[in-house]
Amino acid sequence: MRLSQMLFVTLREDPAEAEIPSHKLLLRAGYIRRIGSGVYAYLPLMWRVLKKVTQIVREEMDATGAQECLLPQIQPAELWQESGRWDTYKAEGILFNLKDRQGRELGLGPTHEEVITAVARDMIRSYRQLPLHLYQVQTKFRDEIRPRFGLMRGREFIMKDGYSFHSDVESLKETYGQMYQAYTNILRRSGLTFRAVEADSGAIGGSGSHEFMVLADAGEDEVLYTEDGKYAANVEKAIALPPEAVASAFTTGEVKDTPNANTIEALCQQLGCDATTIVKNVLYQATFDNGQLVLVLVSIRGDQAVNEVKLVNELSKVAADYKAKTVLTVAIADTETQSQWAASPLPVGYLGPDLADSLIQAKPNVAPKFLRLADQTVVELKNFVTGANTPHQHLVGANWGSSLTLAKAVDVRKATAGDRAAHDPTQLLKTARGIEIGHIFQLGTKYSAALGATFATEQGEESPLVMGCYGVGVSRLAQAAVEQSHDKDGIIWPVAIAPYHAIVVIPNLKEATQVEAAEQIYQDLNAAGIETLLDDRDERPGVKFKDSELIGIPYRVVTGRSLAQGKVEVVKRADKTAVEIPITELVATLKAWIAEAVQ
Amino acid sequence: MRLSQMLFVTLREDPAEAEIPSHKLLLRAGYIRRIGSGVYAYLPLMWRVLKKVTQIVREEMDATGAQECLLPQIQPAELWQESGRWDTYKAEGILFNLKDRQGRELGLGPTHEEVITAVARDMIRSYRQLPLHLYQVQTKFRDEIRPRFGLMRGREFIMKDGYSFHSDVESLKETYGQMYQAYTNILRRSGLTFRAVEADSGAIGGSGSHEFMVLADAGEDEVLYTEDGKYAANVEKAIALPPEAVASAFTTGEVKDTPNANTIEALCQQLGCDATTIVKNVLYQATFDNGQLVLVLVSIRGDQAVNEVKLVNELSKVAADYKAKTVLTVAIADTETQSQWAASPLPVGYLGPDLADSLIQAKPNVAPKFLRLADQTVVELKNFVTGANTPHQHLVGANWGSSLTLAKAVDVRKATAGDRAAHDPTQLLKTARGIEIGHIFQLGTKYSAALGATFATEQGEESPLVMGCYGVGVSRLAQAAVEQSHDKDGIIWPVAIAPYHAIVVIPNLKEATQVEAAEQIYQDLNAAGIETLLDDRDERPGVKFKDSELIGIPYRVVTGRSLAQGKVEVVKRADKTAVEIPITELVATLKAWIAEAVQ
Repeated sequence: MRLSQMLFVTLREDPAEAEIPSHKLLLRAGYIRRIGSGVYAYLPLMWRVLKKVTQIVREEMDATGAQECLLPQIQPAELWQESGRWDTYKAEGILFNLKDRQGRELGLGPTHEEVITAVARDMIRSYRQLPLHLYQVQTKFRDEIRPRFGLMRGREFIMKDGYSFHSDVESLKETYGQMYQAYTNILRRSGLTFRAVEADSGAIGGSGSHEFMVLADAGEDEVLYTEDGKYAANVEKAIALPPEAVASAFTTGEVKDTPNANTIEALCQQLGCDATTIVKNVLYQATFDNGQLVLVLVSIRGDQAVNEVKLVNELSKVAADYKAKTVLTVAIADTETQSQWAASPLPVGYLGPDLADSLIQAKPNVAPKFLRLADQTVVELKNFVTGANTPHQHLVGANWGSSLTLAKAVDVRKATAGDRAAHDPTQLLKTARGIEIGHIFQLGTKYSAALGATFATEQGEESPLVMGCYGVGVSRLAQAAVEQSHDKDGIIWPVAIAPYHAIVVIPNLKEATQVEAAEQIYQDLNAAGIETLLDDRDERPGVKFKDSELIGIPYRVVTGRSLAQGKVEVVKRADKTAVEIPITELVATLKAWIAEAVQ
Repeated sequence: MRLSQMLFVTLREDPAEAEIPSHKLLLRAGYIRRIGSGVYAYLPLMWRVLKKVTQIVREEMDATGAQECLLPQIQPAELWQESGRWDTYKAEGILFNLKDRQGRELGLGPTHEEVITAVARDMIRSYRQLPLHLYQVQTKFRDEIRPRFGLMRGREFIMKDGYSFHSDVESLKETYGQMYQAYTNILRRSGLTFRAVEADSGAIGGSGSHEFMVLADAGEDEVLYTEDGKYAANVEKAIALPPEAVASAFTTGEVKDTPNANTIEALCQQLGCDATTIVKNVLYQATFDNGQLVLVLVSIRGDQAVNEVKLVNELSKVAADYKAKTVLTVAIADTETQSQWAASPLPVGYLGPDLADSLIQAKPNVAPKFLRLADQTVVELKNFVTGANTPHQHLVGANWGSSLTLAKAVDVRKATAGDRAAHDPTQLLKTARGIEIGHIFQLGTKYSAALGATFATEQGEESPLVMGCYGVGVSRLAQAAVEQSHDKDGIIWPVAIAPYHAIVVIPNLKEATQVEAAEQIYQDLNAAGIETLLDDRDERPGVKFKDSELIGIPYRVVTGRSLAQGKVEVVKRADKTAVEIPITELVATLKAWIAEAVQ
C-alpha cells in the first residue's frame, strides 16, 4: 500500500482523552478513533493487526479440532432467564439490553454460554457426539461502569470465545489442558511476555480457571507469583501462608480502655502489641439478587486484609439460606449505609466477634442476624486482642470459647507480596501487574443443568453435558502488545502481528533514482510475500522517519545515499540498529529476519 | 474434518418454521439454527461458506484499492441526530435502540453512513487525501417488521459495506463504475445467476443507484427487463411507455349516472369505454416525520397503478412545504382512516380531480388542502371519464381546463410487464423475481453536508465531501445461492463457496480395505489443498449418500467395489453423474474440475 493512497493521519501531540502509553500511541498513529464512550473505529492499520491476531487464534484453535461458528449478538432474554443471569447482569448494569418492536426483551451478548448451551440442547443427543468444541471470533458488548484505556476496557470489543462439551470431567480436563497449551501458543506467537495464573471463576462460574496475563505496568490486575515458577495466581484467587503470628503478651482476659484506638496501628501503639495478636472484625453489607440485605461480620487477623472476591464466593455458597441465587454487591458498611438498618449507632473501630444481633432493626428485607465468618488466620490465635463492642474499649487476652464463639472458618484473606508460598514456605510471593488477555474455565454442568442440555450416556441415561469455556480478548491483545512494546518514539510491533513487515521510505521525491529504486523494491518485497508500505508522500525525510517509528513497522528500508553502491539502509524498529544491505540481498535478508522473528 | 468428530446433525423432515426451499435446506442440513425471531446461529458448515464469500468480497474490494476497517456496531444517537435519521429510523421501528447505564441513547448499526462520515470529518482535510474508500464486513441489525425466510430477511445479518469519498462527482462516478464491476465479479465468482438493475435509492438517499439481483422465484423483488439486455430495473424504479390510450367516444362533456360503478371494470362495462379513457383518482394519506398528515389525491389513467415508492419520492421533494424532513408512511385512505379527518363521508369510487378541500376537517396536524398530483398518463387525455364527486355519478367527455385543473405532472406510474421500453418501444418489458444481494449508491453530499465533513479543495475552499456507498449482503448471498441451486435431494453449492470441495464416503466401516483407502485419499486430498470431509460414521451407505447430497458437497468420492481395480467412484453433486477414476489420478482430476468450476 502507498501511504499517499491510504487514510494515513498521525498526530504530533498526545490526545487528551488517553491516559496510558498504548492508548495514546494507537490514537496518535492513526490506528483507532473514538466514536463514543468505550467505542472505537478500527482504522485500516489496526484492522490488519486484528486480522493477524485472529489468524493466529484460528490456527491454534483449529489445530485442537475445535470448529469455528458464529453465534448471534442479539440474545433473547428467555435464554438468560433460564440460566438465572438475566436479572443479575441487568441489575449490575453490565448487560446492554433493549426491547424490540414487539416489546420482547433482548440482550447484547457479553458472552455466549446460554446461546451455545441452547444449540447443544437442540443438537447433542448422545455420548457418541462428544467431545465437541465450538468457537467464534466476534464483537462483544459490556456496558462498563468506567470504560477506559482505549481498547483495554471498551464497551465493544473483539473476543474469541469457545465452548466445549464433554461426557465427563476427565474429557473436560483433557480439552482444558489443550486450551492451556493453545493459549500459551497464541500469546507466544503474538510476541508477548505473559504468565498463566490461577484465577477466580467470577460471574461465569465453574470449578477451575486460569487467566493469561500479559505483563505490563498499566495492567489492571495484580499477579502474585514465586520465582521458582511453580506458583502464579491472580491476587483475587491467590493463596499463601501469612507471616507467623507473634505470641501475645496478654495472658489474662480483661477489658482495657483504648481511647481513640479505632485503627490497628493506633491500637498496637497504645497496647504495645503486634498486629498479628489482634482479631479485627470487619462489617460488610451484602445485597443478594432477591433484594435481601445481609450484614456480614468477618473476623480476620489484625495484619491481614479481606479479599472481597473470596468473600463474595463464600457468600454465594450460602445464597440459598437467604432464598437468593447470587450476590449482587458487597461493600463495607459505612456510617451512611448503617443508618438503613442499624437500631443504634455501631461502635465502629471497636467491634467484637460477638457484636449483638439486636443492633439490627427488624425489617422485611434485612436478615435479622449477622452472618459471622472467621478467616483461617484467627482460628489458632490465643490470648488475642479484639473489640469490646463499646467505644474506646478492647478485650485483651481473649480466647475462643463460650463467650467468644469461633464462627465458621473460611479463607477470605487477601494474599500479598511477601507472603510465604503454600507449596514451599521458603519462597516468598512477588507481585506484578498484568493485563488479562485470556481466561479458561472448567464450567462443569452449571449451564447445561440450568438449561436442560443433556445427552444419553453409554449406559442410556440422560446426563447434563459437562462444559468448558475459553476466551481470548483479540482487540485487547493487540493493545496489550503496544503497552508492552513501545518506546518514546512510538509503537514497536512484534513482527507476527505488525500491520506490515516493512516500509520503504523515499527520502527525496525529486531524486528520480531514489523513486525508481523504491518503486522496484516495494514491488519486489510485496511479490515475495513481505507485506510492505511505500512512503511516497511529498514530505520531508524527518517527517517520514518519525511517522515510520510512530506506527511501529518492524523494518524500514531507505533508498538514500548508499544507492550509489547498490545498497539500501535498513533500520530495525525494535533497537534502531541500521545496516546497509545490497539491494540484491534485500528480499532474502528480510525473509530470514521475519522467519526468525515469528517462529 | 471427520464427520464423526463434527457437529453434524441432519433432519429428514422439513422444519415447520421454514417456507422457502433454501431456508428449509439450510435448517435440515445443519447449517443454521434459529435462536430467536430473525436471529440465527451460523454452525460450522455455514461459517465456512460465509468465510469463502467474505474472502471473495475482500479480494474484489482490495483489488480496487479500497481499505478494510471495522466500525462500531453501537452508535451514539447524536450522530444520527446530525444526519436527521435518528427520529425517522426510530419511528419506523427499523433501528434497534437502547439506553446505556448513563441514560445515553444508542442505536445498533443497520448501516454506517453517519459513523464513517464522522471519521472522515475528523481525518480528511485536503483534496490530496482523496479519493478514499473504506469498507468493512460486519454483522448489521434491523428490527424487521416481519423477519422471514431465514437469512434472507433476518434481524441480524452479515454485510460488506463500503464508503468512498471524493472531491467531485467525476471521481465518484469512476469509483462507482469500479464497484459496479467489483460487484459483478463477486456474484460471478460466487457462481450466481444475477442481473444488475436500476434501483430506487430509498432511505439511504443520493442520486443514482443499482441493485444486484440474484434471480430466483422466491425473490422479494420484482425486476423488469428487456430481452435486448439494454434495460433492467427494480419495479420500484422502472420507467417505460404505457400502452397507447384509445380515443374516447365521448365528445360532449356531461354528468352520467353510473350506479354502483365504483371500480374501473364496472365503469368500463357500464359506459362501454376503454380503461385508457378514464382518469382515476386515488386518495392517499401521507404522514410526515413531524406528525403532519397530508391527503394526496393522485390522478392516473384508469388502466394504470400507482408506484408507491415513486409517490414517496415525490412527497419527499415537498416535505419542506409541510415543515417536515421526510415521509414516514403512505397508505391508501380507507374508510376507517378517513374518519380521522374527513368532514363528511367521501364519495369513494366516484372521486374527481376537483374533490373539494372543504371535505377536510380543520385540525392542527392535518394539511387543510389536498395535495393534487397528476401522473404523466393523464396529461394528454381528451374527453376522458372521471368521478363527479357524487356517489353513482361520473363525468364523461371531460377535459383539463378551468373547471378541472390539471395538477402538477409527475411520474408515479408503476411500470409493468408488457409495457414498451423507453429506449426502444418495440421491446416489451419482461418480469422476473430477484433477491437483492448488492446495492451501490451515488450518495453525493447528503451526509457530508449534514455532518459538516468538508475538505479543502485545490483552490483552498472548504467543500463537502462527495460520497458513494456500496453494500453486499454476505449472509443473504449464501442463502440466495441455495435458493438458486438445489434439487429435491438437497443443496448444490457452487464450488467456489461450498463449505468443502469433496466428501469421501466409506460405504462399509467393517471392510478394512475401504477404510484404509478412504483414510489415505482423505489425507492426500487435504494435503493437495482440496478441502475434504471424511464420512467415517457408523451408518448405512444409503444414509451417508443422502446426507452428502443434502449438505451439497460438489464431489463425492466412494471407496466401494471398484477399489479392486484401483479405482474409486466420483459423483458430481450438480448432475449426479458418476465416473470411476483411478486412485492415482484422483487428486489431479479433482484439482482440474475445481479450477474449472471456480474460474
